[in-house]
Amino acid sequence: MSHSDAPDEGRGAQSGKSRPVSAPYDSLSVTFREDQPLHLDSGETIAPYTIAYQSYGDLNEDKSNAILICHALTGDQHVANDHPLTGKSGWWDVMVGPGKPVDTDRYFVICSNVIGGCLGSTGPSSPNPVTFKPYGLDFPVITIADMVRAQASLIDYLKIDTLFCVMGGSIGGMQVLEWATSYPNRVKTAIPIATAARHSSQNIGFNEVGRQAIMADPNWHEGRYYDHDESPSKGLAVARMAAHITYLSEEAMQEKFGRNLQDRDKVTFGFDADFQIESYLRYQGFKFVERFDANAYLYITRAVDYFDLAADHAAGGTLADVFKGTKTRFCVVSFTSDWLYPSSEARTIVKALNAVAAKVSFVDITSDKGHDAFLLDEPDFFDAIQGFLSSAAKQAGLEPARTTGEAS
Amino acid sequence: MSHSDAPDEGRGAQSGKSRPVSAPYDSLSVTFREDQPLHLDSGETIAPYTIAYQSYGDLNEDKSNAILICHALTGDQHVANDHPLTGKSGWWDVMVGPGKPVDTDRYFVICSNVIGGCLGSTGPSSPNPVTFKPYGLDFPVITIADMVRAQASLIDYLKIDTLFCVMGGSIGGMQVLEWATSYPNRVKTAIPIATAARHSSQNIGFNEVGRQAIMADPNWHEGRYYDHDESPSKGLAVARMAAHITYLSEEAMQEKFGRNLQDRDKVTFGFDADFQIESYLRYQGFKFVERFDANAYLYITRAVDYFDLAADHAAGGTLADVFKGTKTRFCVVSFTSDWLYPSSEARTIVKALNAVAAKVSFVDITSDKGHDAFLLDEPDFFDAIQGFLSSAAKQAGLEPARTTGEAS
Repeated sequence: MSHSDAPDEGRGAQSGKSRPVSAPYDSLSVTFREDQPLHLDSGETIAPYTIAYQSYGDLNEDKSNAILICHALTGDQHVANDHPLTGKSGWWDVMVGPGKPVDTDRYFVICSNVIGGCLGSTGPSSPNPVTFKPYGLDFPVITIADMVRAQASLIDYLKIDTLFCVMGGSIGGMQVLEWATSYPNRVKTAIPIATAARHSSQNIGFNEVGRQAIMADPNWHEGRYYDHDESPSKGLAVARMAAHITYLSEEAMQEKFGRNLQDRDKVTFGFDADFQIESYLRYQGFKFVERFDANAYLYITRAVDYFDLAADHAAGGTLADVFKGTKTRFCVVSFTSDWLYPSSEARTIVKALNAVAAKVSFVDITSDKGHDAFLLDEPDFFDAIQGFLSSAAKQAGLEPARTTGEAS
Repeated sequence: MSHSDAPDEGRGAQSGKSRPVSAPYDSLSVTFREDQPLHLDSGETIAPYTIAYQSYGDLNEDKSNAILICHALTGDQHVANDHPLTGKSGWWDVMVGPGKPVDTDRYFVICSNVIGGCLGSTGPSSPNPVTFKPYGLDFPVITIADMVRAQASLIDYLKIDTLFCVMGGSIGGMQVLEWATSYPNRVKTAIPIATAARHSSQNIGFNEVGRQAIMADPNWHEGRYYDHDESPSKGLAVARMAAHITYLSEEAMQEKFGRNLQDRDKVTFGFDADFQIESYLRYQGFKFVERFDANAYLYITRAVDYFDLAADHAAGGTLADVFKGTKTRFCVVSFTSDWLYPSSEARTIVKALNAVAAKVSFVDITSDKGHDAFLLDEPDFFDAIQGFLSSAAKQAGLEPARTTGEAS
C-alpha cells in the first residue's frame, strides 16, 4: 500500500489479513482522497471520505471467508467489541464471536460505519473540505445505495473480490438487498433480517416525526449547531423515544412494563415519570443523545425513506425483476411480532425471489420481542443463521471451524 | 334558576327544554361557583368551574330521551355544528342530526367540553382565581372520573336524572365506561366505541412522547407561555404528528399515501416534504396548534394514562367486579384495523360484562381505516348504532321519531 494513489489508512489500519492491532474500542479507518470521490445517487460527490470499520477473525488465503455485516439506523461498526462511547458490549455480541453463529474462528467479519453516520465515517458532522467547518446540511443527502457504494470501496481496498456473506437487520437488511442487487457477483450469500424492500408510508411517517422533533429544537440552528455550545439533544431524545416504541412489540411492552409504576406506590397526579414505560423511554432518549449526532439521524432516516429497491432497479418497478438471474443464495428472516418491518414484508421479498427461481430460505421466527428481536438472544434465530452459514460454507468448500481440540 | 345557590348560566344557556338560542358556533355554558367545587381524584378541588356544552334536539316531557356524547382527546362539544375556530363541520356530523343514527328528531343530545380542555370548560388556560392569571401547571391533574363527575354536574343542572344513553369513542369511550361504573343507575344504555378499560403500556408511551415534545419546546416555559408572545406550537405539532400515525391503520396509510410524492416527479434529495405522508402529517400538526392548547394536551393525555377502570373500582382489580349488578345495557364497538385500541381490548370489556350476566352486544366492525374509523362514514357502524338505539328506545317506551309526514 505504498503507491501514491492508494487511500490513506487510519491508525491501526491493516491489510485485511491480520486482526486489528489497535485497542479494542478504536476503529480502523480508510480515507479515500479527493481523486477517489464517492459518487452519489443525487448526482453529487463526496471527497475526501473516510470509512471507519472494525474486523474480527482472519481473512483466509483465498479471501473467501469474508462476511460483511451492515448495521441498522443507530448502530455502528462496533459489532462485537466494547463501544468506545458507552462502554457497553458490541451491539451484536450475541451473534458474532468465536463459536457463535457468525463464528469468528471461521469467518473474517467486517462492519463499517455507514456514510452519513457519526462514528468515524464521513457524515454531516465531518469537516467540509471547502469551509473547514462541519458540513451540517451542506452534506449531500445520501441513499442506501450510496452507503453500499462506500462499503464496496472498503471491500475493494481490502482486496476482497467476493463476499461470502452480506448480512444485517433492519436498514442493515436494506443494505444487504442493495448489495445483492448492485453487486450480484460479489455476494455469495445474503441474509436480510427484519427488513423490507421499500419503506412503508407509516414508517416514513415515523421518521418524519423524528426529524420534525429535531428540527423544532431551537438548538438545531438549521443544522449548524456544531458552532454552538448546545446541540438539539431534546429534539433528538424525542425522536429516539418515538422510534423506540416501534422497535418493541405491544405484547413485549405490556409484559415488561405494563402499567407498573416507577419507584412509587401510587400515581403522583403530576407529569413525572410515574410509569415504568415513561421512565424507560426517557432514559432511552437521554442515553441516545450522548452517542449520536442529530444531523446524522436526519440523513440516515432520509436514506431509509428513499429506499425502494424495485423502483430504483427495475424498469417496470417489479421487485422480481431486480433479482433476475441472481446466483446469490438468500436467507430471509423475519419475526412474528415485528410491526416496523412485519413478516409480510419478508414474504414480499421471498415471493419475488421465488418468481425468478432464486435460491432462498425463509425463516419467520416466532417471537414476542418485536423488531428488536434481531438484536436479542433468540435461540431459533441463532440456529437458523448458524445452519444457513454452515451449509453455505460447506458448499463453498470453506474449511470447517477449528474445534477446541484442533486448536489446542 | 333564580335562587341564589344556582350555578351561573352562560350566554344562551337554557333550561334543558329548548334548543340553544345562541349562534350555532357559540357554546352554552354553566359555571359552578366557589361553594360548588368539583372534587377531584387527586384530593384537590376546582372552584369555580365552567362547563361549556352544546345540545341538539329537544328534551321530552319526562326527560327520558337524553343522550350524552363524550368526546375524544382533541375533540370538543361541537359535535354537529360548525366549529367556531376552524369553520369545519362538527366532528360527528355524520352520526348526529335529524334522521341520522343518533337522531336529533328523537333524542336530546348533549356534549360538553371535558374539564381540563380548552374549548370553554375550565382547564389549564383558564384564569386561576387566586392569581388572576392562567392556571398553567397549577391546574390540578385530572382523571377520566373527574371529567365524568363534571359532566354529572351538568346533567344535574339540566335536571336530568337518567340518561337514555352515554356514548363516545376513544377516550370518550373511557368516559362512557366510567359513567356506567360511577353512576350505574343514571345510565340506561352505554356505547363505548374503539376504547379500552385501561390504557396500555404502548399507549402511555405514545402519550409520553407527545408530552416530552411539548415540554422540550422552549416556548413552553414550564407551562407559563400564556404570559409570552409565543406558545409551544412546534412541540405540540410534533405531538400531534406522532399521535396521528396511531389514529390510522398501516393499510389505510399505504392505500391513501403509499410512497406517493407530493407535487413533484422525483425526490429532491433534501428534507422537504417529498412524500405525501410527510406533507399530510405536517399539515395535521400545523392545523392542530391553531385550535388546541398545549397544556390541555398534557392534562388530557395524563388523564388517559391514569385510566384503569378495574384498578380504580374493584378491590381485587378484576374488571368483571366493576360491572356486578349493572342494569345498563351495553353495546361495545371496535374496528378490526384499530391498533390504538384493538378489538382485543373491546373483547376484554365484553368478557367482563358477560361474566356478570350484563346485557351486552358486541360489534367488531370490519374496516381498514384504523382508530379514526369511528369518526368516518362506516355504514355497518351506523347501522349498528341506529339498530341498538332504536331497540333500546322501544324497550324504554320512547316515542318513535317523527316521520317527515307527521312533522309537516
